[in-house]
Amino acid sequence: MVERLVLQAYYPHAVTISVPVNILPPELDVVCLGSSLVDVLAQTDDETLSRLGLIKGTMDLIDLQRADEIYAEMGQAVEVSGGAAANTAAGVAALGGKSGFIGKVADDAFGEIFTHDMRALGVRYQPTPVPAAAGKLEAQGTGRCLVLVTPDHERTLNTHLGAATTLAPADIDGPMVASASVLYIEGYLFDAPQGPEAVREAIRIAHEAGASVALSLADPLCVERHRREFLDLLVDELDLVLCNEEEALGLFNTTSLDDAIEAFDETGLLVAVTLGAKGSVVISPGEISRVDAVSPEQVVDTTGAGDLFAAGFLYALTHGRSPELAAQLGGLCASEVISHMGPRPQVDLAQLAREAGLIS
Amino acid sequence: MVERLVLQAYYPHAVTISVPVNILPPELDVVCLGSSLVDVLAQTDDETLSRLGLIKGTMDLIDLQRADEIYAEMGQAVEVSGGAAANTAAGVAALGGKSGFIGKVADDAFGEIFTHDMRALGVRYQPTPVPAAAGKLEAQGTGRCLVLVTPDHERTLNTHLGAATTLAPADIDGPMVASASVLYIEGYLFDAPQGPEAVREAIRIAHEAGASVALSLADPLCVERHRREFLDLLVDELDLVLCNEEEALGLFNTTSLDDAIEAFDETGLLVAVTLGAKGSVVISPGEISRVDAVSPEQVVDTTGAGDLFAAGFLYALTHGRSPELAAQLGGLCASEVISHMGPRPQVDLAQLAREAGLIS
Repeated sequence: MVERLVLQAYYPHAVTISVPVNILPPELDVVCLGSSLVDVLAQTDDETLSRLGLIKGTMDLIDLQRADEIYAEMGQAVEVSGGAAANTAAGVAALGGKSGFIGKVADDAFGEIFTHDMRALGVRYQPTPVPAAAGKLEAQGTGRCLVLVTPDHERTLNTHLGAATTLAPADIDGPMVASASVLYIEGYLFDAPQGPEAVREAIRIAHEAGASVALSLADPLCVERHRREFLDLLVDELDLVLCNEEEALGLFNTTSLDDAIEAFDETGLLVAVTLGAKGSVVISPGEISRVDAVSPEQVVDTTGAGDLFAAGFLYALTHGRSPELAAQLGGLCASEVISHMGPRPQVDLAQLAREAGLIS
Repeated sequence: MVERLVLQAYYPHAVTISVPVNILPPELDVVCLGSSLVDVLAQTDDETLSRLGLIKGTMDLIDLQRADEIYAEMGQAVEVSGGAAANTAAGVAALGGKSGFIGKVADDAFGEIFTHDMRALGVRYQPTPVPAAAGKLEAQGTGRCLVLVTPDHERTLNTHLGAATTLAPADIDGPMVASASVLYIEGYLFDAPQGPEAVREAIRIAHEAGASVALSLADPLCVERHRREFLDLLVDELDLVLCNEEEALGLFNTTSLDDAIEAFDETGLLVAVTLGAKGSVVISPGEISRVDAVSPEQVVDTTGAGDLFAAGFLYALTHGRSPELAAQLGGLCASEVISHMGPRPQVDLAQLAREAGLIS
């Protein structure tokens, strides 16, 4: 896998022999593949979570009826574009990188909001919206994620995937995927009926074009649902893995972080495991580094922390920096996004990173 | 006007003779009458404002085509329920008061968001949504307000009123208006074709029921458009006026704040003029008080500052406090709302006010 672009950052000597297919340099740094969601965020309390039967810190897939039930119990909310991989694409663009996004919206108000926000950030995004009332009830309308933020700043997610569930291999924009250094995939896509095939198609194109392939494990429950598929990908298809501690433990069915790190180390991939306030661990062939977290001024809402870590990590790698510095930049981006409500940066991330001496 | 309830706070001895119609105490503290809007907020720069031909700090009424044009130039946005009088109703509820709201939505996603958010805060709100595609183009869909926030934290508003323009006398919920201590009206309603008649109908009901009537002058350009009507109301119908400095100057066609204060003083009404970081002036029969502003930890977005000042002011008055303390509570509520994006409080306002010793 050394010939893939991302690892050039780590093995600079390999650069000249590393682009077997693309003659021109990649046009995009990262293409993200994921669910198009609008987040509906409200502050709540533990009592409301238990009354609604929700498990704190997880993402649950819900139908429209359940969405209405939870929404009715939520306080005044803020709507803001979200979606895990979409947040990462937004973060890469906010850092000054070139990113693209692939994911399905419906032709409704939330679809317009989502599309506007991606383009407003400079993310390349050309969706073909599906009719808002087409198909089964659970596939109707642009996806939305109800985010309940508790006083401990944890977030509990309830997602009505809607149009995002209609992603199919035909939706993969081959030229866009082929034009990127890295294809970044959110694990949540394995919840869509044709998601796994769409993912495989995108990976096929990426590999043919010499792009690196990164997977985000998304969420502990998602790992539980798709552990087998994720391990298969790990063995055959991936160059990078991004996950948090709980997801890492779930993937290898262990309670020991050290065991999980060792298991990742054996794969020979580049892996970043985020540990919340404890920072992150970067596992790369022959080296394991621990990187401190960046303390935010205040913690308001942890939604998007992992996604923005991924944005900083991938931006740095695709700009020739070491995995360790990449994890530092990831930590900085995560610290910004948890200091306010919503999963997208609210300040000029590039300037923030320059001030921290992490990008030039 | 001394018999009206709000002034009881100021003239406590008048309380026993002050409720000519209602035998029971009022059920609601404040009923707000205004435009139902969802705000679309994005950070921008002065250059973008001039390119779009926008005048900083004002509210412009726009059609759908212009809305699309401005939206396309806006960065990634956050959607949050807004509307001037609706924000005030939300603020009164957040302080623990009992408030209601009257205003039109369409049966679309933004209408659902707006309605949900009002009810989630405990505001009494029972709209009859109009069909999203009914009527003229400018009346279609739930109203939205494009809010461009510049680095100086000023906001420039562009409102597509949509369904809000359909407000008519028949929409005034008589029993709700009659059940309140104060009817609070936003001046923007004079921009709707049947707005002035709807306002007059609400005032008639309020007066019959012995409720006080308050008008917010809304915005300098709004004062310019409706100066004559506002002055007529001032003479015949109002008990309270809320405005900022620029609106006060516009109303009396003067460049001197002292002159405007003197003119207000001659009306014999209770008036609060907000002065931004300089605090506020309260003019009540025989007394003029200056009240300092409350400095927020940070200023992020001034959207909703006047609306939340009104919320604190009206909550305190309807709970028997002096106009001066009411202006202090108004200042505290305004300081919270300008410390973050969006025009609605993000913390427990009642607790904040208790900690500041302003409510018990």
